[in-house]
Amino acid sequence: MFCGCFAILTGDRPTGKLHLGHFVGSLQQRVIMQDQYEQYILIADAQALTDNFENPEKVRANIQEVLLDYLAVGIDPKKSTIFIQTMIPEIAELTLYYLNLVTVNRLLRNPTVKTEIAQKQFGESVPAGFLMYPVNQAADITIVKGTLVPVGNDQLPMIEQTNEIVRSFNRIYKKDIFPEVSAVLSKSSRLPGIDGAAKMGKSLGNAIFLADDADMLSKKVMSMYTDPNHIRVEDPGQVEGNMVFTYLDVFDTDTQRVAELKEHYMRGGLGDVKLKRYLIDVLNGLLEPIRKRRLEYAQDQEAVMRIAFEGTEKTREVANRTLCEVKEVMRLDYK
Amino acid sequence: MFCGCFAILTGDRPTGKLHLGHFVGSLQQRVIMQDQYEQYILIADAQALTDNFENPEKVRANIQEVLLDYLAVGIDPKKSTIFIQTMIPEIAELTLYYLNLVTVNRLLRNPTVKTEIAQKQFGESVPAGFLMYPVNQAADITIVKGTLVPVGNDQLPMIEQTNEIVRSFNRIYKKDIFPEVSAVLSKSSRLPGIDGAAKMGKSLGNAIFLADDADMLSKKVMSMYTDPNHIRVEDPGQVEGNMVFTYLDVFDTDTQRVAELKEHYMRGGLGDVKLKRYLIDVLNGLLEPIRKRRLEYAQDQEAVMRIAFEGTEKTREVANRTLCEVKEVMRLDYK
Repeated sequence: MFCGCFAILTGDRPTGKLHLGHFVGSLQQRVIMQDQYEQYILIADAQALTDNFENPEKVRANIQEVLLDYLAVGIDPKKSTIFIQTMIPEIAELTLYYLNLVTVNRLLRNPTVKTEIAQKQFGESVPAGFLMYPVNQAADITIVKGTLVPVGNDQLPMIEQTNEIVRSFNRIYKKDIFPEVSAVLSKSSRLPGIDGAAKMGKSLGNAIFLADDADMLSKKVMSMYTDPNHIRVEDPGQVEGNMVFTYLDVFDTDTQRVAELKEHYMRGGLGDVKLKRYLIDVLNGLLEPIRKRRLEYAQDQEAVMRIAFEGTEKTREVANRTLCEVKEVMRLDYK
Repeated sequence: MFCGCFAILTGDRPTGKLHLGHFVGSLQQRVIMQDQYEQYILIADAQALTDNFENPEKVRANIQEVLLDYLAVGIDPKKSTIFIQTMIPEIAELTLYYLNLVTVNRLLRNPTVKTEIAQKQFGESVPAGFLMYPVNQAADITIVKGTLVPVGNDQLPMIEQTNEIVRSFNRIYKKDIFPEVSAVLSKSSRLPGIDGAAKMGKSLGNAIFLADDADMLSKKVMSMYTDPNHIRVEDPGQVEGNMVFTYLDVFDTDTQRVAELKEHYMRGGLGDVKLKRYLIDVLNGLLEPIRKRRLEYAQDQEAVMRIAFEGTEKTREVANRTLCEVKEVMRLDYK
């Protein structure tokens, strides 16, 4: 089903190691998509700085971690183009041109940004860079003429903003330079945290990281939220809202076995420790090869960075071609 | 009085030909300053686009016109470095980093921008690019480590914004990369329009352009606002608010003669036409050599653009060095 006319743009903010939530929400999909489409994977360091500008060391360190996570899960640099945002100046240039096509009120109304501003408790001090990051994202996507962007439901307003800019740009400068962008909605719903919170988060203390070793995994699963009323082994337990079963539903391919375990648990006689040991085995089955590859790649950090540099170089050629077209229609093609 | 540690950053938005207001307000000063300081002159095409994005042809055409005006008044590319903003991607990159250090509320409070937003009647549709142009200006100035910026009183908030960014940046990234910037206030007060309006404006229909030929100059001076009650030659006339005298005060170096004319006019017996003919002679004395040089340079438009390209190349080297320092302290110096 390969089609040269589609390009995927996806990526991550390098603000922490990637976890199981990323794995089911996007990484898995990327490993499949790289065989079907042209896929660009952006390490969004500039965007990470919009709310971490006082902590550049954190962003820097996590570029390496995110790269290792990518390679460990099977993202193949021969099939996917991984690039670093700040190394593509064309994105900054395009962002500035796009800012003329978006009103301040439109930015203030963006639902995703509004929610995030509330979450991050900026109060009256919202950094201008943070407010306009959807415009920066539009530049990320369109500089490689991306047409497919995998997102969660909460990120749909970003695609809408990008398409508004695309339409304005093409109309004002009288040439269809940019294709409209389609959201590829993540099939799996969001993975909850081990504490039962709706979302597994890098910095929420409720995540199982791809880089966690077997001991750490075991510790985290053992602390997982189950049924607080399931005190003794012989008590009947609840499956709904029990994170162990939520994770088994997501990660255990043996659905027959999971159904049996659920039945046993509800009937009584299946203890949490035994159940958790089973989940640990399942997760180790998934994570062990990932950990192994991660450790192998981590041996040669320079080689890992080189992968990002090569992807960046390739992206820069595309970005440069796009910006040339942009400057031509904007009459900025001085010569 | 040359001092290598000062660098001037000045420039114009290429939205129209330059006029006598520019001449007394800035161009004259630049011709003097280029012998005393390192002087960068910015053709701010990106900034011009923030409120002309739907009219890129206008910006494009006026780059050439502004360049011709510069050369005609005696700005010497051997002494001043003229450069084109959009040809320096480092400015766009630095602008994005600076946007993280400025809050949205701070931008909305900028008095100059507030006034301009009202004047331009954006209503609820202020382009985001327009709101953040002071941040873009801070990048213009600091990318060449400018320390002196000639401004009018109304532009002082821009210098303040730049210094706030400079201080934040140096503090957050723990290195004094950028020097603080000083405003060089224009000595001459603003030149009014020929209609008596407080300001001569490119697009207000009240300007005498440096490129106007003798016929056009004559026509414009003849239409100048004088004393509406000065009907007959023998009537006593008023000097105050009479544009012909306002201009003579600015442009006639023979102050003795101007004093005599004022006396005669107030006494009665000096007609407007005669007076205006005198002003025409004075202005032609100033403008004739400028026109001549302008026409000469206009013979070879390519050579004129080459001057801007060479200045841009020189500026880019400086800009690149600055951005390298910025990326180093921001930990974006991947290698």
